Amino acid sequence: MALVVQKYGGSSVADAEKIKNVARRIVATKEKGNEVVVVVSAMGKTTDNLIQLAKELNPRPEDRELDVLLSTGEIVTSTLMAMALHGMDHQAVSLTGQQAGIQTDSSHGRARITRIEPKRIVKELEQGNIVIVAGFQGITPDLNTTTLGRGGSDTTAVALAASLKAQTCEIYTDVEGVFTADPRLVPEAKRLKEIGYEEMLELATYGSKVMHPRAVELGEVYRMPILVACSFNDNPGTLIHGGVSMEQRNKVRGIAHDLNVAKVTVLGVPDRPGIASAIFEPLAKANISVDTIVQNASVKNLTDLTFTVAIGDLEKALELIEPIAKSIGASKCVSDSTLAKVSIVGTGMLNAPGYAATMFRALAEQKINIQLITTSEIRITCIIAEDSAKDAVKALHKAFELERLEI
Amino acid sequence: MALVVQKYGGSSVADAEKIKNVARRIVATKEKGNEVVVVVSAMGKTTDNLIQLAKELNPRPEDRELDVLLSTGEIVTSTLMAMALHGMDHQAVSLTGQQAGIQTDSSHGRARITRIEPKRIVKELEQGNIVIVAGFQGITPDLNTTTLGRGGSDTTAVALAASLKAQTCEIYTDVEGVFTADPRLVPEAKRLKEIGYEEMLELATYGSKVMHPRAVELGEVYRMPILVACSFNDNPGTLIHGGVSMEQRNKVRGIAHDLNVAKVTVLGVPDRPGIASAIFEPLAKANISVDTIVQNASVKNLTDLTFTVAIGDLEKALELIEPIAKSIGASKCVSDSTLAKVSIVGTGMLNAPGYAATMFRALAEQKINIQLITTSEIRITCIIAEDSAKDAVKALHKAFELERLEI
Repeated sequence: MALVVQKYGGSSVADAEKIKNVARRIVATKEKGNEVVVVVSAMGKTTDNLIQLAKELNPRPEDRELDVLLSTGEIVTSTLMAMALHGMDHQAVSLTGQQAGIQTDSSHGRARITRIEPKRIVKELEQGNIVIVAGFQGITPDLNTTTLGRGGSDTTAVALAASLKAQTCEIYTDVEGVFTADPRLVPEAKRLKEIGYEEMLELATYGSKVMHPRAVELGEVYRMPILVACSFNDNPGTLIHGGVSMEQRNKVRGIAHDLNVAKVTVLGVPDRPGIASAIFEPLAKANISVDTIVQNASVKNLTDLTFTVAIGDLEKALELIEPIAKSIGASKCVSDSTLAKVSIVGTGMLNAPGYAATMFRALAEQKINIQLITTSEIRITCIIAEDSAKDAVKALHKAFELERLEI
Repeated sequence: MALVVQKYGGSSVADAEKIKNVARRIVATKEKGNEVVVVVSAMGKTTDNLIQLAKELNPRPEDRELDVLLSTGEIVTSTLMAMALHGMDHQAVSLTGQQAGIQTDSSHGRARITRIEPKRIVKELEQGNIVIVAGFQGITPDLNTTTLGRGGSDTTAVALAASLKAQTCEIYTDVEGVFTADPRLVPEAKRLKEIGYEEMLELATYGSKVMHPRAVELGEVYRMPILVACSFNDNPGTLIHGGVSMEQRNKVRGIAHDLNVAKVTVLGVPDRPGIASAIFEPLAKANISVDTIVQNASVKNLTDLTFTVAIGDLEKALELIEPIAKSIGASKCVSDSTLAKVSIVGTGMLNAPGYAATMFRALAEQKINIQLITTSEIRITCIIAEDSAKDAVKALHKAFELERLEI
């Protein structure tokens, strides 16, 4: 008997009919002889609506309270799913993050799972239950509810799969899997049959919304195969795993893009040791992820320091940076939130030159100006104007002949 | 420094504006130098909406799952209230029933509080917080969420007040206090300034919706003074306590009515020992409260057994009773759900005859047929046709001259 962990996202459980549809899929998995643990997200726009409600009470709700509020969304779905399964004559029980033993640190709003104590889940499985776990949430040692941040239900699912030594972790969503680019931008984009953890991690981090990067990372650490597929049909989806066949590796695998990019430049920074940490430590303490950092060559002992953050963090970042810039003698801060990142990802580029050149040429042909460039071993990212993003993705998809990919 | 427990019902927290209004009242109490613990209900129609949603998934949702689902309603209000208080620059923290230490038995849907472990509340109060507790819910020894049944937030409030040795427990609602009869039926009904626990218990049990009877009972056991008042103004409300002045005791204090009455009659029951327990034990096991029980005088060793239940329990009661009736040789079961109870309540009637006669005469003058009569030491109840309830309450209010009551 295999143990399967399935996760269903918000659009897959948006209303009573969709919950029943998912319940039928769960029953089918169970009836194949599997033990099933299911992680659910909040229904449709529930989380957004709760945030809206919170802001009516307080424009800046405290993270601790917001976590308790938002955690109710997933709890509601979990009980409704259990009820739907009972209606289909199957034993099922819903568990909150706390009951499922998901222990986290105290970073409200973006908590990290520290440990999973799956005793209760194991007991419920032994009693023949399908176990429905409210995703996205956990509990601190002080018994305060936390949430794992947006997309955290993916993380819940992979972490549970690893902890329970499941055979696979299946992430069901409203898309058919991982594509060579966003099909809404590039209609000829192809679904990938499989992809390696590292490549998926880069795609997810650099804008592919299919899966949360933390969940991919966890999958890689625990070597947990993750299937991403659509909850509305039986198409095969994309398998994320470690053993991607050799010949598929020597290629650009996909184009990611991200419109959630803001840039901050601190101008006229004195070029001396300790300046970078003076600027970036307060951001780290405020839990603001800084992505790309570029420091220009110093002229007359002054340099410009540029970095990017998510648009939602821009205001807070500027609040923190402006007084620091002043205190270290920088001339001023400027920011721009009309930017996009486009990235090409593939393990192939690790040992083969020419990818960067092809990328830059493709963008140049579209007269797209590149503002910043960053790279990893398997990724090249260009930061460009937001309104060029669509043209850039289309051009890159074509330049790397991804529409010819055999899946 | 006094400790005050306040409870705000669903209509008092129905939207963001009303929550802010309540937050202002809480702040006023705190600024008078009190420590404040607040128990909140779910917003407006939330509980009804969640039940509706559950029934879309499963016409008979399992009690355990329904409890988890419904408990989210109060949790949402508690966090929003804490956020509103933060917005008014006051320290506040929301606690779930579990966090507040409200331990219950495992009777899902109508759990009883077994113990309160207020350690966390005390800690939060010591840190200067206003503590907002999600009402209506608790946790079993197995860490499953329970609910206390409709109106259970009143019970949460009084139990917490007793456990914390609060000075008073204040129940805020959308009515001005306890009236001599429902003011919607009897416009000349008067608000009572004070009332004894026993009288309030009878009024609440027999239909006054102002407070949950269990909460009144708890108040009596722990001699906790309970103020019932309106959350939308500063009118004085009604104080429920033990020391009601002597001269106010010799009177009928109020008329209660209840439309939620169904009657079951088992016809032709063999009159032998053990029959009543054969019929009522299964109902008790199914957690169905049986109210009035009447057994006719036996004719030819056969009797008719009549009892009343809440309308919501009728279907389940009949399912249980019909096979039993058959097995004990009764001829058949009949039921009627178009009934009402009207009751007069007052400690005065304990030692003074004539109250029953006045009541029956008043009903007779309205040509209202009395189907069943039950009494306690301080109450007389008549079961009549539902469509006569309004006339009956008006006639009784007049017959006992309650409109002349000085408050």
